[in-house]
Order: sequence, then C-alpha cells, then structure tokens
Amino acid sequence: MAVALTIVGDPREPATRRTLSVPPGTSILKAAHAGGVDITATCGGRGRCTACRVKFLAGAVPPPTVMDEVQLGPDLVREGYRLSCQCLLEEPVSVQVAPPLEERAFQILPDRPDGLARLGRVALDSGVAKQLVKVTLPREEHHQTSDLEQLCQALGVRPEDVGAGVLQALPQALRDDPAGVTVTTFGGRVLAVERGDTSPMKFGLAVDVGTTSVVTTLLELGSGERLGAVSSLNPQCVYGGDLMSRIAFAQFDPGNLRKLHTRIVGLLNQHVAEVCRESGVLAKWIYKVVVVGNTCMHHLLLGIDPSHVGLAPYAPVMRHPLVLPARELPLRVAPEARVCLLPLVAGFVGADAVAVTLATRLWESEAIRIAVDIGTNGEVILGSRDRLWACSAPAGPALEGAQIRHGMRGALGAIDRVTVDDDVRVHTIGEAEALGICGSGLIDLLAGLLDAGVIDWTGLIQVEGRAALPPRLGARVELRGEERVVVVCRPGEAGARAEIVLTQDDVRQVQLAKGAIASGVAMLQHVAGVPAAGVAELLLAGGFGNYVSIASALRIGLIPPLPAGRIRYVGNAASLGAQLCLLSEAERARAAEIATRIEHVSLAAHPDFERLFVDAMNFPRTT
Amino acid sequence: MAVALTIVGDPREPATRRTLSVPPGTSILKAAHAGGVDITATCGGRGRCTACRVKFLAGAVPPPTVMDEVQLGPDLVREGYRLSCQCLLEEPVSVQVAPPLEERAFQILPDRPDGLARLGRVALDSGVAKQLVKVTLPREEHHQTSDLEQLCQALGVRPEDVGAGVLQALPQALRDDPAGVTVTTFGGRVLAVERGDTSPMKFGLAVDVGTTSVVTTLLELGSGERLGAVSSLNPQCVYGGDLMSRIAFAQFDPGNLRKLHTRIVGLLNQHVAEVCRESGVLAKWIYKVVVVGNTCMHHLLLGIDPSHVGLAPYAPVMRHPLVLPARELPLRVAPEARVCLLPLVAGFVGADAVAVTLATRLWESEAIRIAVDIGTNGEVILGSRDRLWACSAPAGPALEGAQIRHGMRGALGAIDRVTVDDDVRVHTIGEAEALGICGSGLIDLLAGLLDAGVIDWTGLIQVEGRAALPPRLGARVELRGEERVVVVCRPGEAGARAEIVLTQDDVRQVQLAKGAIASGVAMLQHVAGVPAAGVAELLLAGGFGNYVSIASALRIGLIPPLPAGRIRYVGNAASLGAQLCLLSEAERARAAEIATRIEHVSLAAHPDFERLFVDAMNFPRTT
Repeated sequence: MAVALTIVGDPREPATRRTLSVPPGTSILKAAHAGGVDITATCGGRGRCTACRVKFLAGAVPPPTVMDEVQLGPDLVREGYRLSCQCLLEEPVSVQVAPPLEERAFQILPDRPDGLARLGRVALDSGVAKQLVKVTLPREEHHQTSDLEQLCQALGVRPEDVGAGVLQALPQALRDDPAGVTVTTFGGRVLAVERGDTSPMKFGLAVDVGTTSVVTTLLELGSGERLGAVSSLNPQCVYGGDLMSRIAFAQFDPGNLRKLHTRIVGLLNQHVAEVCRESGVLAKWIYKVVVVGNTCMHHLLLGIDPSHVGLAPYAPVMRHPLVLPARELPLRVAPEARVCLLPLVAGFVGADAVAVTLATRLWESEAIRIAVDIGTNGEVILGSRDRLWACSAPAGPALEGAQIRHGMRGALGAIDRVTVDDDVRVHTIGEAEALGICGSGLIDLLAGLLDAGVIDWTGLIQVEGRAALPPRLGARVELRGEERVVVVCRPGEAGARAEIVLTQDDVRQVQLAKGAIASGVAMLQHVAGVPAAGVAELLLAGGFGNYVSIASALRIGLIPPLPAGRIRYVGNAASLGAQLCLLSEAERARAAEIATRIEHVSLAAHPDFERLFVDAMNFPRTT
Repeated sequence: MAVALTIVGDPREPATRRTLSVPPGTSILKAAHAGGVDITATCGGRGRCTACRVKFLAGAVPPPTVMDEVQLGPDLVREGYRLSCQCLLEEPVSVQVAPPLEERAFQILPDRPDGLARLGRVALDSGVAKQLVKVTLPREEHHQTSDLEQLCQALGVRPEDVGAGVLQALPQALRDDPAGVTVTTFGGRVLAVERGDTSPMKFGLAVDVGTTSVVTTLLELGSGERLGAVSSLNPQCVYGGDLMSRIAFAQFDPGNLRKLHTRIVGLLNQHVAEVCRESGVLAKWIYKVVVVGNTCMHHLLLGIDPSHVGLAPYAPVMRHPLVLPARELPLRVAPEARVCLLPLVAGFVGADAVAVTLATRLWESEAIRIAVDIGTNGEVILGSRDRLWACSAPAGPALEGAQIRHGMRGALGAIDRVTVDDDVRVHTIGEAEALGICGSGLIDLLAGLLDAGVIDWTGLIQVEGRAALPPRLGARVELRGEERVVVVCRPGEAGARAEIVLTQDDVRQVQLAKGAIASGVAMLQHVAGVPAAGVAELLLAGGFGNYVSIASALRIGLIPPLPAGRIRYVGNAASLGAQLCLLSEAERARAAEIATRIEHVSLAAHPDFERLFVDAMNFPRTT
C-alpha cells in the first residue's frame, strides 16, 4: 500500500507542489529522486551534510535520527527539519525542500553557544566547483592532439588555465575509470583532475596563524559543515615569544628567517595530517585554504624578511590579498589548491584584524562598535559602516597562558573558571585533573583576588594583610623567599598532581597585557572622539581556553566600564573570519575592501599614548 | 686643439648628421654622449658587447683593438666597423652609428663557418627588460602602504604582476643603495628587483635536451652575444639509451619517474653552474630560459608521466607552449626567471623538431626543402611556406657515439675526420690524443671503408677478402674469435694510448641509425609526393662532434642521393632554434604557429614503411 508524499518547493508558489505515491519504508530523498524531484544530496545520501534537509509542513514529524541531531542541531530539529536521506516514509506527509544550492545560506556555527550565533547569514559560495567529465581520447595514431587538449575541449577552458601540478598524473587519471574524471576548478583555473566521480569530496581549511597559537579548521565546502579543528602552540615561539624578539632573531642571520618559515610550514602540514586523519578526509580533497595572521606571521609564512616591519616606520613588504598554489609553500593538500592570504592594513594591523572586522560585522554596523581581539599581538577595531579605525595591542602572550609560571593554552586540564570566596575554587576543561591555568581562568582568578582584597589596585599581592583574609584563603597567600605567590591548587586539589600557583610576576604580566589592550581601546575612542556612551557594543574575541567571563574582564579593567549588556564574547573571531572567506568568495572580496577602509592608528607615535597606558596598567579601584 | 667628429644616424637622412668639436684622445662614445648624441653602450663602454659599434664613413680608420677583433670579428673590422668605446679620436672623422636598439639585427653566429651563416637576420627582442628605478619609501609612521605598493607605483604595475620570489628580499634591496633598484620585467611580470644599477646584466639560456646529449648555451640578451656553452651526456642514459627503454623504466615504478626527472634537472643545474663560472656571469642575472627537446624529454623534465607517449596511439600529455618560473623546476637561475618550453607536435615529434623548422627557415621557404636532425630520436621535416610534414627517425644513439665500442661524443680527443686510402688516417678534435670516435668520424670511416672495399654493401666486414687490400689497410682487418673488427688506431697512432676499433656490431648500429633516417626522408617524400628533383635543398643538422662530411653522408646513404650542392650541414639546429626564441619573442611566437602547422606522419602506421626501411638499411651499391 503506497503512501502519499507531497513535496513543496516554495510554499508561496502552488506550481512547485508535487504529490508522489511511494512504497512505505522508502526514504524521502529516494522517493523524490524516483519521482523526478531534485533534492541535492551533497554527501550522496549518507547523512553527512545538511543539503537534503526538508521541513515538515503537514503530517507527523518523525523522531529525529542521530544524523538529524548532529547535522541540523536542536533548533532546526525542533522546527521540524529533517534530513530527507534519513527519513523513511510511513504515513502521508507534506514537506518543503530546503532552498536550492545557489540560495543556500550558511550560519556560522560558533564553538561557543553565546558566540557568533547572532551574526548574519552568508550565502555559500566557496568558488570551488567539481564536475564529472567524460573525456574522449582518440584511438588512431595519426591524431595531433594531447590529453590536456582533449580535457580542455570537454571543459571549455584553455591549456594555460590548467595548473602544472595537474599534468603529472593526468594521463593515468584519464584512462583509469570509464565513468570519467572529476575536475575541480576555482576562479577559472583547473586545480585537480581525479579519476572517477569524486564530486562530493570538496573541502577547505581556515588557518589562523597567531603569534602564540595556530588554529586550523576543516570545513566541507558544499555545506559549510565544520569537520574538525586542531590548535597548537606556534613552534616559532622557541625563537621568541613576541613579534619583536622573533623579528630580531630573523635579522640576526638569513638562515634564521628560513628556520622560522620552515617551522610554521611544518606545523601547518602537521595540522593538515591531523585534521585529515581525524575526519577521514583525504588531503588531496582540500582545494582552498584561507590564512589569516598578523603582518609578521604573514611575512614569515611566505619567507619574506620581516626586519623592516620591526623598524620605524614599520613598513610591511606587501599588503594585497595573495593567492598562491599550495605546492609553493609547500602545503600538503591538493598541489594546485589555492592558498588565499587575506590582505594586511599596516605593519602591526594584519589580516587577523581584517578577519575580525569581517566576522563581527563591524563594517556594516549602523552604530559604533568596538571589537577587541585578545592575543599576543592583539588588535582593537572601532567603527561602523561609515568609518573604521584599528590599532595593535601588543598584549604579550600572558592571556594565551604563555610566560605565566603555570600558564597553559586552553586544552584538557586547563583551569578555565575560578571563583574566590572564602577559598579559591577552580573548574578545569573537560573536568580533567588540573594541569595549569589558561587565559579565561587567569582573568577570573585576578578578578576574584581583587574582590577578596588579596591583590590591591596596583597589583601587589597582599602578603602583609593575609591575616585579615578568611583563613583558608589567607593560607594560600605566601612569601617564598622574596616571591609573593597565591597557591591556586595544592597537590590533590582538582586532581592536580603538582602545585599550581600565581606569582607576583604573573600578575605583572597580566597587568601589561590588559594595559596594552585597555589603552588601545581608550586610544581609538580618543582618536575617533567616541565616549563610552557612544559605543553600542563591545565584542570581545580571542582564542581563550573557554568563554571569558565578561564580569571578570570588566573587573580587571581589560575592557572599558560599559554596561554588561553591551559586551559579548564572540570566540575566535579571526578564525571565524577566515572560515567566512573560505565558504564565500563574496566575503573574501569584502575582506579586501575592508582592508582598504581601515585607518591605522599608530599608538607609539601618538603624544597622549604614554599617559593612557600608565593609567591602564592599574586595576580599577572600585569593586 | 679640438678634433671634428661627425656622427651620422642614417646616411640617407642629412638631418641625422651632427658635427662635434672634441678634445683629442676622447673616445667616440664619450664624445657622442657629451655632445648629446645617443649611442647605446650595453656593457657600459667596457668593450664587452657590440652595441656601441660605429662604421667609419670618412677619415682614417684606426687600427682595430683586441676588443674590436673579439667582438666584431674580421669581416666587420675589414668593412670599417669599430667599437666606439674603444676608439680614441686623433684626427677628424665621420662615423655612422649602428642602427638603434629597436632595429638592431642579430645574425646567428654558428659554431661552424659553413653553418647557419646564410640564414636571415632576426630583430633582437628577448622580452626581458631591465630598468633602474628610484622608489620613495615613506618615513612617517602613519603611512598605510607597503614596500611592494611603492615599487608598483614607481613602475606602473599591479602587485599581482610581481612574482612571489621577488618579495622575500625586496625590503633589503629597496633600502640598500641610494642609486635605486634595478627591476627586471618580462611579459608584464616583474621577475627581479636588485639593489643598485645592474641593468647591463641581462642573460639567458638556450637548452637542447636530447635523448643522449644535452647542450646549454649562455647568451647576452642585449647583444645576442654567445658567452659560452656546455654539453654533456644526458644522465638519464643509465636508465636506458633510447626513449622506449626510458619510458618502460618510468612505467615500472612511480619512483623511477622521479629519478628521471631529478637527473635531468640536476644536470641542467650543473650546466648553469658551469657556464656561469666560465663566463663570470652570475646565475641570478639569467632571466629567460628556452628549452627544446622531444616529447618524452619535455615530459620527463616536467615530471609528467610519459607512459602513454610510448603506447599506441602515442598521445602526448600536453603540447602547448609552457612558461613557468624557474623556481618550479627548480632551475638555479633567477628564481622568477621564465622557463619557456617550446610547443610539441605529437608523441614523437617534439619541440626540437619545431626549433629545427624555425632555425632552418623551412616555414618561409618558397621551394620545398628537407631538414634532417640526426639524434637518438631524430626528426625529418619536409615542406615549404605552404605546407610542412614531419616524422620521427628513431636512429638510436650510434651517431652520437653511444652504443659503439669505442664511440664518444664530440669532445676533445674524439676522432672526427677519417680518410681511408692505403691505410686509415684519422684527425682528432683539438688534435689531442685519440680517445674514441664521434659521429662525424664514424660516417667518414664507414664511407672510406666502403670505397676501399673493406665493407660490402650489406655492411659485412670483408675479413675473407683482406688479402686483396693494400697491405697496411688489410692488416687492420681482423677476425677476433667470431668478431670481425677494423683497427682504427693502434696504441701510439694519433697519440692513442689504447686501441680503437670498429666492430661488425658497430657497423650494424650505424646501419640501423642511417636506415631510420633515410627511410624517414623517403617516407615524407612519398607522402608529400615530392621526388628528389623537387627538393631544393637538404639541410643536415645534429650535434655531431664536428662538421659532418656531406660526401661521406651521401656515400653511406644517410641522406638521399641529391647533388652535393643541394645539401648543407647546418650544425645543431635545435639548439639554434632555442637561441632564436631566447633572443626574440617574435620567433618564440612563430614557434607556436609552426607547431600547429606541422603535419605529423606516423611511420609505423603506414603500410609502405616496412619496405622502405629494409631498403634503407643497406649501403648504396654505387661508389
């Protein structure tokens, strides 16, 4: 006995309505295809993407499968969306097919629920296209043609448009599979020719090369799905924690420049291997890579001498958006994959600032907003759709957990939340045994210690006043030789195997970091003439271990005293900006436009900066 | 007391006449520049090029300097040409300035006096231009620009037009020399930026990659001057002497393809190092490289799998002219130097055939001519400006001295000339001690032995009839075990330290080689319907050790029996074609056009070939 399946293209258009008679137990996707209704199934109907989703308009909505929940998320599932490939028909239903490919929209899925979820939707248009092509090869000996010419004829392109890396394996690919070859193109260029039909396999990488941390994210280009991410310490750190020491190292010897270059390229190749292994994606199916980073990281990745980025007037060697084949770095993805480096603004305002501006939508904001990207070489951007200013905020690596006695990046076992009452109480990432403390934990800890009076407004640990503290808290404040410390975890507390302390020096490092950022914000407000009341919103971004607590960030004066409702944490916005450009060529074009719009404010050159910086080093006196 | 110097631009144009009053002892070049008359001095007035040459029209012609003789050669010196930089004024003279740069003409200087000297003149237009540029870098910190943007502004190009290899050293180059930077461009692309004024330093390489021999020639691009050449055995030979065995080797294992690729790239880099060392030219001043070779050599150089070139229907992977940056091979010249691979015609008619057609001017010939390029994988081209046919002539390496018992390439000590009367008399290259025998010597030797009756028309060494020969000649014919040999040099003869012999097997190898070539010529005449009487000229080309004797080539039937006056030896025409394309972009464009015009004749597929080949294996019976 057949079941009635009604499929609607656009509910406002009755002409798009079709009713099919379907054997029970058939999937909606198969039934639609059998009935001549096109539903795109990017992953081939395996529940691995969201392309074939439908929305139930009438009839009982079946319970979601695991695939529905993983791919669509709780919101869409609740609204009656299901993957048509997973949904077997048992009774009459009416469903709406998801908008067709060219109108598909992409919602950036933040790592954190309070992250970028409120940002706009972006049309998926990575620029990477794959198509199955049958190439006819002549059989007679007198022909005067070549494999490449036959391919070009089938595709309608010129031999000059085919990357050299494609040629080496072309003859075998053309002869191996009677189904044909799958040709990948980007911007009119042929990037790959693979035997057989590999058209659903289309991936890209977004890479955020920070001074201290490097984050690589793997996305499926057809659906925007995030398949994995890996983050690690920038291995250039062994040659200097901040930009200036790394530039000095590069200047010292031409071989050093090569070392810095080789280290970062090596790490990116490790990242490729790791995300590929974890996701099951083959590296040769990665055809587009978007890289963001500050000017120095950008130059070192390209092997460009950064010496003059570190000397007044701090001139970058180049600023324009660069697209180069992966084999030139070399990055071990498809050899002809395009590596797109976003443009730079100035010596100390790089592609990461452009990516943050893009991801936070500052460029189209009606009201004036501020984006603060916390990092070793952080940036502050202030503005609206009318005008944009940016400055660098050289915070140093403290808030990324580096150069802190027991600091660490936000990985398993990092203390990411701290409360201070009559004692210090910690939470670790993954609730694993405490190994150290990451940026968000450090900010919480200092805020709590300030409120409890363990640290005063100048940052001094109050060893002398510890008797006045609650006994358990007071017992954590120690003078060891000449060093003032607060014991955060004793062995055994939070599963810690070894003691975790906060030293006086750690407090000074955080003061330097937050002073750099707060004075950068103050400076842009000063230059742009925008008082606190004129700031509609402050967006706090950065690769902290976990959500940074807005209250704690306000308490230590990392950000200016705005009402808490006008501040939100948006996660790693530089990486999200790179992901946007990976998924959308329109966004990548917008990044180029943003780079030309941003006005660079040089802090060091400004006469008022010194005063602002000294003020910003202290903690706010009010609790 | 001043001397009158009259300088004439064009003798037919009185307006181009200027008379200057000059202190005696001044060079004509300096006097002209002081008087505002432009004479180009590519080498900077050091007597290292011919650009500043003048022709004496009136007054005493001064005796030539050594530089005059080296640069201009005896003919121009006799006609009253002198280098104006070398010529000091002592009495009133009238001189004509050589035609200006854009009309300068280039005469291919053949290695051999009877070579290509009769060929046409080619306008010098390598496409490589160097200019001294002063780039202004901003000094204030608020600027938003980059080194590259400042350079592009000064040059009027876009950042995208600058090769990535230029960026790495750009900041230092822009700041090192107050004189400015010298920028090299080619086809709208910036290939190099060098500190200071290096504009006279502009060089290129013509590379002929043969199956057996590789020849690299260094030319000065401004004057066309030949600064050096180096030739050596193709190191791929260890993996197979001919194309088919090398293709089989490549098919066996993907690692083998890489080995073949690495070997040839390695050799080219050795050649670069060697010509640079001998000429004093720095490798970074080489900005253009033109490569010719057969289809298989072309593919192996690019690392392209040649398997299907060796399997019916013998399809090349690509045929179009390819231009790629040197760093991609990698070739250790300027990293962004353009490596131009000339186009291919078919699986067995490659860029070398195109280069021969170009250099021999077959493409513009009114009458029908034949060009025969002798090589391991030789080619025959027949035609005129109306139509062109080509076939491959897989001669094997015998005529390049390989697979011959005492064979060698045409290097110092090779026997290059042989006469046979009552004995065998040899001449060696450089009149050095005899080490072996090269192609031209082998052809002479066989012709002489045929005439003397030591070898019969089937190629058999007449051991049985040796008693009838003159005693000294007869004593050279021996039966050693079952092997028939002719002793060419005994130890001590021609300074030889060891015996040099011709074996029966050597004779068979030459028969195979000349059979392949002669049957190729016969086949093209057959297909094109051109009898011997219709052939205006046969041009014999190849990298023999020395001039091949036309009479000997006719005697052994290497070439068809045309009157000797209609045959000439034109040297290594494939290399000369590459040199033409190096010096002239118009010629390089012409090569692309020629490649599309040539019609490939497949010998193996033709029903009449077998008969022609068997006939051609024997020697002509008439003396």
